Amino acid sequence: MLPAAINLERAFDRVTEHWSPKVIAELNGQYVKAAKLKGEFVWHDHAGEDELFLVVRGSLAIQFEGGVVTLGPGECCVVPRGVRHNPVADEECWVVLFEPAATRHTGDLVTERTRSVEQQLV
Amino acid sequence: MLPAAINLERAFDRVTEHWSPKVIAELNGQYVKAAKLKGEFVWHDHAGEDELFLVVRGSLAIQFEGGVVTLGPGECCVVPRGVRHNPVADEECWVVLFEPAATRHTGDLVTERTRSVEQQLV
Repeated sequence: MLPAAINLERAFDRVTEHWSPKVIAELNGQYVKAAKLKGEFVWHDHAGEDELFLVVRGSLAIQFEGGVVTLGPGECCVVPRGVRHNPVADEECWVVLFEPAATRHTGDLVTERTRSVEQQLV
Repeated sequence: MLPAAINLERAFDRVTEHWSPKVIAELNGQYVKAAKLKGEFVWHDHAGEDELFLVVRGSLAIQFEGGVVTLGPGECCVVPRGVRHNPVADEECWVVLFEPAATRHTGDLVTERTRSVEQQLV
């Protein structure tokens, strides 16, 4: 069987809820995820995992303790492990995430926004 | 210091030669690379590494022993470890690669196109 061609925009069809990533591909123990963001997330970090954010549509501000990095379509940013951050999107923003399969998207925090890996695979 | 915002299109400014990837980001022992492809590469596989191709500009055909997967802008494909493949681009194509830092882009083959990791970091 041939590997699937994945259209990044169309992958967002499956994403029906804000802050609820869906896994769209897996490689080398890493997941590629699609997420729609709107509003403010929560301050958190990932002790053992670096996380890449790639904006596909809209604009994303990632707040850090030292300032803000703003990403538009086609722009990405790697948040290193252990660095506290808080993604904020004034308007709906589509992002592709790249991170180890074990990453919990709210870090060690458990909030009403926390989604299990099983929920992200549906 | 804040993490850098990386514009995927502008990252290709550094890429001046076909089939000569440049590392644009690193996370979790994986590299994100930018490569300009034109023509036919070589049949190869990576015994221990899955490899993601994301087309940013142009069109890429990835030949497999069972057929061809064609990717346009915004489309990606994961080539699983051990699967023989050959990327072909009739016209110049810009791709972002995501793969373990240890991946040799020509697999176990060494050809005049093989570039060392050091060359990819320049």
